[in-house]
Amino acid sequence: MPAPGENLKINGDRLWDSLMEMARIGPGVAGGNNRQTLTDADGEGRALFQRWCEEAGCTMGLDRMGNMFARREGTDPDAPPVYVGSHLDTQPTGGKYDGVLGVLGGLEIVRTLNDLGISTRHPIVVTNWTNEEGTRFAPAMLASGVFAGVHTEDWAYAREDAEGLTFGAELSRIGWKGDEPVGARPMRAFFELHIEQGPILEAEGKDIGVVTHGQGLAWVQVTITGKAAHTGSTPMPMRRNAGLGMARVLEQVDRIALSHAPDAVGAAGHIEVHPNSRNVIPERAIFTVDFRSPDLSVIRDMEARLKDGAKAICDDMGLSVAFERVGGFDPVTFDSDCVEAVRRAAERLGYSHRNIISGAGHDACWINRVAPTAMVMCPCVDGLSHNEAEDISKDWATAGADVLMHAVIETAEIVE
Amino acid sequence: MPAPGENLKINGDRLWDSLMEMARIGPGVAGGNNRQTLTDADGEGRALFQRWCEEAGCTMGLDRMGNMFARREGTDPDAPPVYVGSHLDTQPTGGKYDGVLGVLGGLEIVRTLNDLGISTRHPIVVTNWTNEEGTRFAPAMLASGVFAGVHTEDWAYAREDAEGLTFGAELSRIGWKGDEPVGARPMRAFFELHIEQGPILEAEGKDIGVVTHGQGLAWVQVTITGKAAHTGSTPMPMRRNAGLGMARVLEQVDRIALSHAPDAVGAAGHIEVHPNSRNVIPERAIFTVDFRSPDLSVIRDMEARLKDGAKAICDDMGLSVAFERVGGFDPVTFDSDCVEAVRRAAERLGYSHRNIISGAGHDACWINRVAPTAMVMCPCVDGLSHNEAEDISKDWATAGADVLMHAVIETAEIVE
Repeated sequence: MPAPGENLKINGDRLWDSLMEMARIGPGVAGGNNRQTLTDADGEGRALFQRWCEEAGCTMGLDRMGNMFARREGTDPDAPPVYVGSHLDTQPTGGKYDGVLGVLGGLEIVRTLNDLGISTRHPIVVTNWTNEEGTRFAPAMLASGVFAGVHTEDWAYAREDAEGLTFGAELSRIGWKGDEPVGARPMRAFFELHIEQGPILEAEGKDIGVVTHGQGLAWVQVTITGKAAHTGSTPMPMRRNAGLGMARVLEQVDRIALSHAPDAVGAAGHIEVHPNSRNVIPERAIFTVDFRSPDLSVIRDMEARLKDGAKAICDDMGLSVAFERVGGFDPVTFDSDCVEAVRRAAERLGYSHRNIISGAGHDACWINRVAPTAMVMCPCVDGLSHNEAEDISKDWATAGADVLMHAVIETAEIVE
Repeated sequence: MPAPGENLKINGDRLWDSLMEMARIGPGVAGGNNRQTLTDADGEGRALFQRWCEEAGCTMGLDRMGNMFARREGTDPDAPPVYVGSHLDTQPTGGKYDGVLGVLGGLEIVRTLNDLGISTRHPIVVTNWTNEEGTRFAPAMLASGVFAGVHTEDWAYAREDAEGLTFGAELSRIGWKGDEPVGARPMRAFFELHIEQGPILEAEGKDIGVVTHGQGLAWVQVTITGKAAHTGSTPMPMRRNAGLGMARVLEQVDRIALSHAPDAVGAAGHIEVHPNSRNVIPERAIFTVDFRSPDLSVIRDMEARLKDGAKAICDDMGLSVAFERVGGFDPVTFDSDCVEAVRRAAERLGYSHRNIISGAGHDACWINRVAPTAMVMCPCVDGLSHNEAEDISKDWATAGADVLMHAVIETAEIVE
């Protein structure tokens, strides 16, 4: 089977226009989007996507989680499809590209193949996974997780939003609960194009990130307990200052992560002290350490050293310390054939590229459990995401979709 | 003039009974008191104190701030009185002794002198200063501050509580706004007995703290600004972590205070980070450094080193830092003659004692500006105060009031 020609390109203007048209649905307050999952706006976005897919000759499948599957037929009715896609839902103050680029980039592949009259042996299915963001109904990547067998359907249906509405009831209400069993689809492969949501590609001037791994994560909530006391009348040697203990542990978190440079990271984004009064020595400090690495043994090492080190610091200061693991997932190693298809595509098209590790979770991380999977990343301005100011250039979007298409159609096998 | 005899003692049981009776007014929810200033309970406490004073033969004066002055006449009508007292208002979840011991300890002096038929040349005036706590109407030590000329009457009247009620209106409402001009009283001296609100005396097994100084204070609010970024997708060298910058500054605050051991102290009780999300590098950390010392030059040195050091830390980390002085007062050096009177009293009575620096603010710190002033401290359990569990023993209260009496009547001059 031939490789796609190096001049085969998607239509960047059309992709960009579709991104802008989708962004009109569920507008934010600052130029971005608020199209949270299973809202009326989500339903409207789905309807637009369905219309576009049907106009492009696809048939739409819909499973019981509301996952959408727009199928362009292949020449071999028995060949398992190549899947491509991401998610159309957004954060409450989200951007126009997080997720959407991966779905509409998949649609743009179909439109381009139609324009050029190109057939593939394997069908191509453009997918919109329900509730990737997880802001309204936790956890994130909910429906792809059910698809991959990580969660059960009933558990997913029972997830509640802040108003007590359930995922299942809201999915029915907006009219996007299908009949199809979840996860029953054989897949030849899955490819997801996504903005980086980090600063590396832009900083290095690279067009494409070839995603080799997804970072694993451990969230360890640390509670340090000392003794509340008056900041004026308690001599320094008699203090048991939980805030100072926290400061020393935070310094240690930094050292631990740096000891596993360059891929491991560590920090605390969540920090509270009690009673949090200007003239009371903190009695308690609670903070969550976020360690990530593409290597599970590194995550385990960082957790163990955090616990040992914090214990030693606190013992020395007359403080007590407790740990709770409040979140975590294992690192993901993407399928080497799929990753190579992405790298070959970037090479063939002449786009600059580098290997990259996905720091955030994506639907691809779950789908990788049930099908050969890889991801393509494109830069985003200043690494900014989950923010209405999220931004990319049309050139970046075009390069990402070009690489996505080449990886997809090489895997789907062009029919001469 | 003779010194008081070493066998001259107050009646510790009567003092304790009065403390317990006063504590029945404005009870807390956990064994302490909620008798906040200018509430009905405050009015009830004042009425009880007035009744006791009148039963002890005193006449009550009341100024336009509601400060109460119960006068026991001296033998010389022209001699300026010796003042003794503290405050009857409490924190919302306050203890039974903070302030109250100093007022009822003063009353107990009058009762004891009456019992023993002892006269003094100078009148003795037992004082209840309005709104020492400052919880309902900030700032603390409001009415003694007006008395000492630190604040104006009109400014004090305009202070508002959380419901928008003013100090002036509430003082009238409870019926304790007098006609007497504030601050017009000549004073030979002022003595205040107070619980330590710190752990030193109990830890060292001392009966009495001879208060030589009041610590000065500087509250410096520090705002460190970095850049919000995803905890997963931002490589360590590209982070500008305001939370880590804060940790390093907190460590430095500790070192700076320890460099001025043993009297200086430093810590941050108030700490916030933004956006305070587990998977976002802190963009901003805001915290208030509380530095105290009895030496103004030490406070200035600590502030300067904090600013220089934090600037260096933040420059090195790509963070910006800003400082705001959100509170402060200068150290207080109490009157040496009054301090010596307290020390002689403890010696004469055979109580163990040590010099001590008041870490908290007290009415005496303001009155020291307009009259020779000193304080007597007694231990409190575990240094605990501003807490319903605040506790002292009857022996500690008795020793404190004994020393207070001896210092007061030595200064008021016993008439043979």
